[in-house]
Amino acid sequence: MRDLVEIGMGRSARRAYELDDVEIIPSRRTRSSKDVSTAWQIDAYRFDIPLITHPSDAVVSPRTAVAIGELGGLAVINAEGLWARHSDVEDAIFRLTRAAEEDDPLAVTRLLQELHAAPIQADLIAEAIKQIRDSGVTVAVRVSPQRAAELTPDLLAAGVEILVLQGTIVSAEHVARDGEPINLKQFIADLDVPVIAGGVGDYRTAMHLMRTGAAGVIVGYGHSSGVTTTDQVLGIGVPMATAIADAAAARRDYLDETGGRYVHVIADGGVHSSGDIAKSIACGADAVMLGEPLSAATEAPGQGLYWTSAAAHPSVPRSRVTVGAEAEVDLRTLLFGPSADPDGAVNLFGALRRAMAKTGYSDIKEFQKVGLTVRG
Amino acid sequence: MRDLVEIGMGRSARRAYELDDVEIIPSRRTRSSKDVSTAWQIDAYRFDIPLITHPSDAVVSPRTAVAIGELGGLAVINAEGLWARHSDVEDAIFRLTRAAEEDDPLAVTRLLQELHAAPIQADLIAEAIKQIRDSGVTVAVRVSPQRAAELTPDLLAAGVEILVLQGTIVSAEHVARDGEPINLKQFIADLDVPVIAGGVGDYRTAMHLMRTGAAGVIVGYGHSSGVTTTDQVLGIGVPMATAIADAAAARRDYLDETGGRYVHVIADGGVHSSGDIAKSIACGADAVMLGEPLSAATEAPGQGLYWTSAAAHPSVPRSRVTVGAEAEVDLRTLLFGPSADPDGAVNLFGALRRAMAKTGYSDIKEFQKVGLTVRG
Amino acid sequence: MRDLVEIGMGRSARRAYELDDVEIIPSRRTRSSKDVSTAWQIDAYRFDIPLITHPSDAVVSPRTAVAIGELGGLAVINAEGLWARHSDVEDAIFRLTRAAEEDDPLAVTRLLQELHAAPIQADLIAEAIKQIRDSGVTVAVRVSPQRAAELTPDLLAAGVEILVLQGTIVSAEHVARDGEPINLKQFIADLDVPVIAGGVGDYRTAMHLMRTGAAGVIVGYGHSSGVTTTDQVLGIGVPMATAIADAAAARRDYLDETGGRYVHVIADGGVHSSGDIAKSIACGADAVMLGEPLSAATEAPGQGLYWTSAAAHPSVPRSRVTVGAEAEVDLRTLLFGPSADPDGAVNLFGALRRAMAKTGYSDIKEFQKVGLTVRG
Amino acid sequence: MRDLVEIGMGRSARRAYELDDVEIIPSRRTRSSKDVSTAWQIDAYRFDIPLITHPSDAVVSPRTAVAIGELGGLAVINAEGLWARHSDVEDAIFRLTRAAEEDDPLAVTRLLQELHAAPIQADLIAEAIKQIRDSGVTVAVRVSPQRAAELTPDLLAAGVEILVLQGTIVSAEHVARDGEPINLKQFIADLDVPVIAGGVGDYRTAMHLMRTGAAGVIVGYGHSSGVTTTDQVLGIGVPMATAIADAAAARRDYLDETGGRYVHVIADGGVHSSGDIAKSIACGADAVMLGEPLSAATEAPGQGLYWTSAAAHPSVPRSRVTVGAEAEVDLRTLLFGPSADPDGAVNLFGALRRAMAKTGYSDIKEFQKVGLTVRG
Repeated sequence: MRDLVEIGMGRSARRAYELDDVEIIPSRRTRSSKDVSTAWQIDAYRFDIPLITHPSDAVVSPRTAVAIGELGGLAVINAEGLWARHSDVEDAIFRLTRAAEEDDPLAVTRLLQELHAAPIQADLIAEAIKQIRDSGVTVAVRVSPQRAAELTPDLLAAGVEILVLQGTIVSAEHVARDGEPINLKQFIADLDVPVIAGGVGDYRTAMHLMRTGAAGVIVGYGHSSGVTTTDQVLGIGVPMATAIADAAAARRDYLDETGGRYVHVIADGGVHSSGDIAKSIACGADAVMLGEPLSAATEAPGQGLYWTSAAAHPSVPRSRVTVGAEAEVDLRTLLFGPSADPDGAVNLFGALRRAMAKTGYSDIKEFQKVGLTVRG
Repeated sequence: MRDLVEIGMGRSARRAYELDDVEIIPSRRTRSSKDVSTAWQIDAYRFDIPLITHPSDAVVSPRTAVAIGELGGLAVINAEGLWARHSDVEDAIFRLTRAAEEDDPLAVTRLLQELHAAPIQADLIAEAIKQIRDSGVTVAVRVSPQRAAELTPDLLAAGVEILVLQGTIVSAEHVARDGEPINLKQFIADLDVPVIAGGVGDYRTAMHLMRTGAAGVIVGYGHSSGVTTTDQVLGIGVPMATAIADAAAARRDYLDETGGRYVHVIADGGVHSSGDIAKSIACGADAVMLGEPLSAATEAPGQGLYWTSAAAHPSVPRSRVTVGAEAEVDLRTLLFGPSADPDGAVNLFGALRRAMAKTGYSDIKEFQKVGLTVRG
Repeated sequence: MRDLVEIGMGRSARRAYELDDVEIIPSRRTRSSKDVSTAWQIDAYRFDIPLITHPSDAVVSPRTAVAIGELGGLAVINAEGLWARHSDVEDAIFRLTRAAEEDDPLAVTRLLQELHAAPIQADLIAEAIKQIRDSGVTVAVRVSPQRAAELTPDLLAAGVEILVLQGTIVSAEHVARDGEPINLKQFIADLDVPVIAGGVGDYRTAMHLMRTGAAGVIVGYGHSSGVTTTDQVLGIGVPMATAIADAAAARRDYLDETGGRYVHVIADGGVHSSGDIAKSIACGADAVMLGEPLSAATEAPGQGLYWTSAAAHPSVPRSRVTVGAEAEVDLRTLLFGPSADPDGAVNLFGALRRAMAKTGYSDIKEFQKVGLTVRG
Repeated sequence: MRDLVEIGMGRSARRAYELDDVEIIPSRRTRSSKDVSTAWQIDAYRFDIPLITHPSDAVVSPRTAVAIGELGGLAVINAEGLWARHSDVEDAIFRLTRAAEEDDPLAVTRLLQELHAAPIQADLIAEAIKQIRDSGVTVAVRVSPQRAAELTPDLLAAGVEILVLQGTIVSAEHVARDGEPINLKQFIADLDVPVIAGGVGDYRTAMHLMRTGAAGVIVGYGHSSGVTTTDQVLGIGVPMATAIADAAAARRDYLDETGGRYVHVIADGGVHSSGDIAKSIACGADAVMLGEPLSAATEAPGQGLYWTSAAAHPSVPRSRVTVGAEAEVDLRTLLFGPSADPDGAVNLFGALRRAMAKTGYSDIKEFQKVGLTVRG
């Protein structure tokens, strides 16, 4: 039964929890880190670490996509972002950096909006895909539900292997009086590649997306505190611990309903440190979608800047552009250490492995059952 | 059943929630913003957006009243404020601004008290009303319960179309040993114009006000954090999420009791961003009363200053005079965007429309049923 | 039934609330401030406002004791404080002020400890009592349980009318292997003057103190945030909303047990503003003991400094010496306004009167039943 | 029954509490501090105060171990720390101090990692043990579970009287595919000295460790806010109030199961002030393990620096190196006062004694039953 609260007479709300509210509790068993596997598989693709990147231009360039793939993760490049609109992204980011240095947040957002007003050029993104494909790593690209039908054919032709269909908030049932909303079920059925779709915030939407045939469902919208402002702007929030657990329940029920189709739950939001990655899995996620934590890598195209795609919305921006400290670590160290940083910003997946070992679990699937506490 | 807590032996308190405590949850359906209507109607008056202004002199001048009306909202001018007492309000605000720059809050409050000690001049407010009326927009004026009987005849003669009877905290039953308290029921019955009355903080008072014949009931007293200090000064608080839901319950019960009289619930307080507007509606409000968020418009008479009428109380002031940043947006942009501000301070009603679309609702009345969470 | 929480297996704790956790809710009735009485009576002594001072040397000198009495409150002078140990208290406070300006908190506490190491001189305190007595206001003096037996005879001889027997934490049953603990019941029975005793933190101790024959029981130990550190030093805390309600329950039960003896509950702690005074009464207090809020008066002997007697403990100090802003208001204004300060620091009892009026209550006793909320 | 919360559908978490969440409530009895005993005994060793040091090189040198022993506590020297790896620890700490002054936290951690990469030298730690032993105080040494088998024989030969087997998180059952995990039960049975083992975070692990034959079980991992970052890095947390109470329940059940074997519960973490020591005992601990609070002593080898052993982990450091203020108090004053510091940082065990007296308890065992509140 849900934990309902009556906020006023006849009006109830559900108690919900953020990752910050929960903590993992050690169990009676410990294990050696060496005996732990963090691997997972979606469709035919196997990955050493449960990492998918958030499709932020600040962290995913064709070059970092290759690097991330080689390190065992899955990078997602945004087919509607800067790499699809500008031949000289480096210059675009240079202008953003300069604007950010002026400390005028509105000007930065305006520049971002302007840069995203440029048209999408099919050849630019095709070239980016080719670069990734040539390296041999799995190629994943993000499109929005609005432009999926239009853009997908070219993307497939260019060699995309996993399609990420992602809006801030996505539903299986989009109602529109004018225009023709995408029929997700049909769209996915017609594709030859697996689709990861989201983000969702509750059990029902997760279940509906699973029924469209998606191979993975994204929970959340990539929010990280200090960056994302969807709650302030729209009043909408997705407390991640609860949302992940709900989507995991949908996964379980859908597995039962279909007699064995396992749809992966990918947590996208609320991760500030390696501990949050462990908590996301502990709440039920199969993998995490990371954005901001990766912007600290020396290879990150954003060079310390970070923003999500919602930052560039032409009329309702819902994300800040943040300026991080000068990066000192390369991607490999960021993911696997060693770390000299006690804040959990480095050795992201080495720490996950250690958390699993310290609590006695040997794989991701088992670790979803680890004990949790919430602050009283 | 109410959610009661025993704070000490034999003494209970009710759990209550602020807008900040709740978040809207996306549902399984999304919708295009274009298919969303934010319109509402009170008595014969229809408005495109569920916006009534708080009767603060810092945001409502005759000129901004017209502008707000033309943009689809309802502005309320204070018949006991600066426009009713001073022929040169601009000068009065200039003095306030200068005092505020000195960074001596007590001096600012003292000046405000002094400016409100000047007598109310019927011709001044009549002239203001005429200005608004001439423009063709709906004319609404605020009087206090204490002075309603005395001031209303002149206001009606000047052309007021909606009367807002508003004190910090208003009840249907004012007990006084000396003087003659206003008989609200009689007062309203005798009027030809609809009356909006408040603010109230609980179900019973809302119900009593509805029974006086009011067309709308105001919930709250326009508090915004950093400005209003009623809690510190009087120990009295109206947690808005709970208060709105309670008043909505009164609306429902009164509708049943009268076999169809729908009294509008207007939420006045706790709104800092567009997200809070969405939350107010989601908790059950038909419209929101906005003060501080509007003070950021270039047209605002306060020129960045903001205060509520409680700031000028001669002996128990309960509001600060705050100094905002230099405004960069005009009223139209403030209400409808486009925005380059990720904090939800701009595009207030465009964001509401988007929140409704993102959660699949097409009108205000339906959106009152959207799902909510509270932080665990 | 108490609201119990299991913090660990087999170990429970009670949920308890501070004044900050509760808020008063308006009711369906309002009233004119003029029709409100804040008067109360203890034994034969009647007071216009429910104010007893905390026996802090920073706020009570013989001179301010007279002023407070003339304004309708009851001042309590500390028979073991500076006025009892130094003939030139002004000089002692001058030294404290100078030390406080050096911004070396340890040095200030050391000086305070040194000043309190001087012997108590019976003639000094007798002279102070005489000064108060001569003015015609009620004379109240504080002694500690440890020294009550020794000091009281001289105090009575000097003309004390109400004896305040107050330690940080006081019980009716002090167990000691050596020395002879005071037998409170006998001690009080032998006195001709009413005794106010405390502070206590729970129902049982309150009940036991009532049974000793005390006319009033103090709840709390005068803690104000930023000043008192008993929680940090001893781990002991008295959440005031709960403690007041519990003591009020003891008052009710004792009234029943004795067939009519009404022992007054005096709340000593957690008050930072006029709103907290209203909340204290609302939780069940008959009067509040104020220290820090009074230190803002121009007449306060501490000249902006504030400390409680626990600050001078020779080995376990549990209070800081705080430096306030330069005072701008005299005692009368501090208590009764008018105020130009929206923070509830001025017009302390005028605001109480207004809070009572706004919620429709006409006397202290009734106001103890006003509705309360706690934040969800 | 446990207090469970459903954080999402089908996923529950347990409500858990930190020491900061609880407060001790005074009871109806008080007592003189002189009649209070804080003594306790483990195996044949008796101590005046329930103090065991955290095995941090920043607080325990051979010299301070002697001083602490002479003052009635038990110091634990780290057999895998700087004293075991460097002949000139003073110089190592000098280098750390210099690095810390540069304000480059990563550099400090790197230096600490480098200093801990030096090999353990049996003769160095043997010499340290000899120094302590020669003074006549009880000799306790810490080893990690990983190196216990290897290091213990030499330590016993050098004269260790109590062995502390401590890792960040320890279980009775370590699973490893390669290498040979320690069999704790056999290991302890083979030893002639009592073993204290931990840290643990829950009832079951505590119970399992008790069954291995340990004389004491450590709860927690020495976390102090601002220093330890295990939660951020691993997502693992041990809310101390709950963890202590759970371990105390295990102690009770194990006592019953064995018909009388009493295993001591030692709380290691969450202590920032003397009040937290009192709370730890109140939650059920027999003694507290202190690290950071002792670093303020003039004798502390860290000279104001503090870190736990987790700070030096070669790839996943989970503790910062903090720089404290210049110490002004010697160990004796730190433990027993007198204090001129109202923040509970000085007179740590004098304040414990006073807290016990103020609530009417005369020994540690009884004080474990004192009343508690949690904030509503």
